[in-house]
Amino acid sequence: MNMFSLSQASPCSLIPNPQSFNPNPRPQQLPLPHSLRIISSNNSTKISTQTPTPDPDPSNIIDPTPTPTPTPKLKHRRPAEVNIRQQAHLYNPSTHNFSAKYVPFNASPSSTESYSLDEIVYRSSDGSLLDVQHDMEALKKFDGDYWKALFDSRIGKTTWPYGSGVWSKKEWVLPEIDSDHIVSAFEGNSNLFWAERFGKDILGMNDLWVKNCGISHTGSFKDLGMTVLVSQVNRLRKLGRPVVGVGCASTGDTSAALSAYCAAAGIPAIVFLPANRISIAQLVQPIANGAFVLSIDTDFDGCMKLIREVTAELPIYLANSLNSLRLEGQKTAAIEILQQFDWEVPDWVIVPGGNLGNIYAFYKGFQMCKELGLVDRLPRLVCAQAANANPLYLHYKSGWSDFKAVTAGTTFASAIQIGDPVSIDRAVFALKNCNGIVEEASEEELMDAMSQADLTGMFVCPHTGVALSALMKLRRSGVIAPTDRTVVVSTAHGLKFTQSKIDYHSKDIADMACRFANPPVQVKNNFGSVMDVLKTYLLRKDKS
Amino acid sequence: MNMFSLSQASPCSLIPNPQSFNPNPRPQQLPLPHSLRIISSNNSTKISTQTPTPDPDPSNIIDPTPTPTPTPKLKHRRPAEVNIRQQAHLYNPSTHNFSAKYVPFNASPSSTESYSLDEIVYRSSDGSLLDVQHDMEALKKFDGDYWKALFDSRIGKTTWPYGSGVWSKKEWVLPEIDSDHIVSAFEGNSNLFWAERFGKDILGMNDLWVKNCGISHTGSFKDLGMTVLVSQVNRLRKLGRPVVGVGCASTGDTSAALSAYCAAAGIPAIVFLPANRISIAQLVQPIANGAFVLSIDTDFDGCMKLIREVTAELPIYLANSLNSLRLEGQKTAAIEILQQFDWEVPDWVIVPGGNLGNIYAFYKGFQMCKELGLVDRLPRLVCAQAANANPLYLHYKSGWSDFKAVTAGTTFASAIQIGDPVSIDRAVFALKNCNGIVEEASEEELMDAMSQADLTGMFVCPHTGVALSALMKLRRSGVIAPTDRTVVVSTAHGLKFTQSKIDYHSKDIADMACRFANPPVQVKNNFGSVMDVLKTYLLRKDKS
Repeated sequence: MNMFSLSQASPCSLIPNPQSFNPNPRPQQLPLPHSLRIISSNNSTKISTQTPTPDPDPSNIIDPTPTPTPTPKLKHRRPAEVNIRQQAHLYNPSTHNFSAKYVPFNASPSSTESYSLDEIVYRSSDGSLLDVQHDMEALKKFDGDYWKALFDSRIGKTTWPYGSGVWSKKEWVLPEIDSDHIVSAFEGNSNLFWAERFGKDILGMNDLWVKNCGISHTGSFKDLGMTVLVSQVNRLRKLGRPVVGVGCASTGDTSAALSAYCAAAGIPAIVFLPANRISIAQLVQPIANGAFVLSIDTDFDGCMKLIREVTAELPIYLANSLNSLRLEGQKTAAIEILQQFDWEVPDWVIVPGGNLGNIYAFYKGFQMCKELGLVDRLPRLVCAQAANANPLYLHYKSGWSDFKAVTAGTTFASAIQIGDPVSIDRAVFALKNCNGIVEEASEEELMDAMSQADLTGMFVCPHTGVALSALMKLRRSGVIAPTDRTVVVSTAHGLKFTQSKIDYHSKDIADMACRFANPPVQVKNNFGSVMDVLKTYLLRKDKS
Repeated sequence: MNMFSLSQASPCSLIPNPQSFNPNPRPQQLPLPHSLRIISSNNSTKISTQTPTPDPDPSNIIDPTPTPTPTPKLKHRRPAEVNIRQQAHLYNPSTHNFSAKYVPFNASPSSTESYSLDEIVYRSSDGSLLDVQHDMEALKKFDGDYWKALFDSRIGKTTWPYGSGVWSKKEWVLPEIDSDHIVSAFEGNSNLFWAERFGKDILGMNDLWVKNCGISHTGSFKDLGMTVLVSQVNRLRKLGRPVVGVGCASTGDTSAALSAYCAAAGIPAIVFLPANRISIAQLVQPIANGAFVLSIDTDFDGCMKLIREVTAELPIYLANSLNSLRLEGQKTAAIEILQQFDWEVPDWVIVPGGNLGNIYAFYKGFQMCKELGLVDRLPRLVCAQAANANPLYLHYKSGWSDFKAVTAGTTFASAIQIGDPVSIDRAVFALKNCNGIVEEASEEELMDAMSQADLTGMFVCPHTGVALSALMKLRRSGVIAPTDRTVVVSTAHGLKFTQSKIDYHSKDIADMACRFANPPVQVKNNFGSVMDVLKTYLLRKDKS
């Protein structure tokens, strides 16, 4: 077999056979669904199917000169001149008919309005939100065990693009994009931390988890959505659409993620920021990632207004927070939680909420897993808001009767300091459909909860503090039981919020007791002084 | 079958049978070695062996009241009152005879000096370094395919403690520790980033990777070693040894990692820091994680001297950089790289070097994989030093003839600003045994390389800049070829070094051109002004 035999491999039927279809180009490590009969010996693995599939291991096909090695079981590498992207492209024939399109969010069954994902459209014809709708019938041709085995088979490797926690679910995210057009940092697959000590000591819980979406490439969960948005923009540019760049007006995580992914792809990123209102740590990411950063002499709303005007004039794609593509990436965090629990469903998932896209994304991820048979139920979702920016909480407390935007006050949880959330309809829909709850946290509550989490070994952001406060209230009221498996979603790395931690531990925050502050102790450079201080500390620890 | 039948399960023989032995308590998803014959139907998977193993899925045993569910394939969860640590303890019988001990590093074959890992010993009898030596004969009873399948089966789940990238290799790290004593944040399994654009645009390479060890719990690779050290300390305390706490004198990542892991375990952490010489970002982690932080009116050497004196008087375990336990955790990053490449060996691995433990840890990880048959060769290692702190580089250039400590100058790569490295012998041993190379980078070179990496979508620390500079030199000289698969080890998250990035992009560094600076552009709050600026930028981009 030589390199040219590749083109002779017959493509699979366009209508997939659930047993022969294999969208994974390197399934060598695939733990196949239990329903399949596997016979293995040495290097050859056969799946008993009616239609033979092309040799799934490209290295068996394309290496024309296998060199003798002392251990014959070792695999041959791809030819040196082929990179992983090209390899994925070569072995990624269109063997399925999965598809997705934009539809108006929660449209009536009679609506026929829809748009190709290759159109640049942000809102439906009546100005409401869009949703990416997948062809669920096509996906349902494969059962839950198939999807679980497929997703599990892609973890922990660097096969393009499946090494990503987002793109390992490609068929459920952007099924029609060519792998060659994907812009990925192998994001996702983020840490799911067992909060053993926080759970035990503070809440009497034994099954509490923190999904650390902020232990990530740009330090926040925004990577998950941005890889999808920038990949689709990259596809549009490759298809010859006149998209000269991607723009956003953001004070933080969104501009960081946008800039990083655009930098990876060589696409111009344009970021509008209000002059003199942004911290160094927030500013440095877009700058370092080569974005064209305009520091404008106005506030955030002024930046937002300007970028809307500019993108109406110039072919710049707008990466705003109502963008429904981003939610397709964010929903994979929900799927990943189930996967990390070996497809067992937690009882509660608590998500901090500001613009409210994320709570819907989690709902959508869980719901797809239920609808496609990977799990049998949904967790109950809790949306946690800062009391200073709590329009959803007030709406929930009113019995969903009357939504009113609020003027958001300042909060340490700066990324959710939003009084008029774009995705309010999405959030209400999600919460109603999973028997969800909304809670709120005061500034002191959220900073105390963040600090208590840190004291038990985490290093979380104030938004995670909001979610942990919500958990503490729901535990106290008995809504969440001691043995309920509960996941708190952490949205950013604590390293992005060091100043608020310093302020707290310096007890330098007005009207806050900072009960859990742990300031350093000044000691003279003297053995005796150090020993005295240490002995006092250890005696105190010994008694506690 | 009821809960009590558990105690009746017969333990495995102490001498393991390679085909029946199964140290993974939840191998339901285990992709078994190809050499095993598997017959699967519905829920029952059988491995054709002579000795039957106990039911490997604890949920099949211990759930006394399986509730009917609509989909019978769904698993039952563990009883609500059992946490994952207890579950691991219940299903973690001592079924093997793997072991490890301290021996003098690179001891002569006639040496019989050794210490139990349960002793508290930092140096050998003649004052030289120690090494953790594993019983390789016991490990060799299992072939390379066995280990690969075992390690692969543990990825992406939250089974205690195997959800960790370190403890998924437990048998090679601390084989004798009870899983119940392990202190883990599910560290490791860190991102291996394909540096597509940096490779292509700057170096003409197609197979360049960055192992992002800094996308982690505490933001640096130190987590990998600290989980091992703190776990062993936790074991000693559970065994009743009088260890009242763990101490270190560190200006940065080590104290952060020590504090986090001690906080997770509830063990007192004691950190000595020089007053007024540490950045806020460096100080905040130990403080937030509840360490007892002594800010002492001296410099780093003064802190080091004091903590040595104090730990000689008080039963405080010293987490210093010569500690050989930490290297056992750090070596798993090497194993993980191989695993992420589906057990293909890269040609080059470039590691920034200061105290030089890490370069040896990488060597040891690769070497164990070779010796135990997982791979057939070693990559060539490159140790990259800052020119301002380059004793190993000078030693290498002298033909290894003459080691002299240097007085380290200031470097942006502050964690490797070390003139007299503790692990010099380990590093020389490693490099000699893998045909290794040492390179150096000036301050301008390392900051330029860091910035170029950021401009292609990364966000790396100055130490990674040192390693990338080394790569650029070795590419330019032709030592590293365009198609060589090369891995650059990134040791910390860029978020820990935002100030140096700000200084660079503000062109605010003496004697440095900051050629790749990307400062923001000030614009008036006016549509026309913004459009003018943008059009100029886009025209320029279009031409480039």
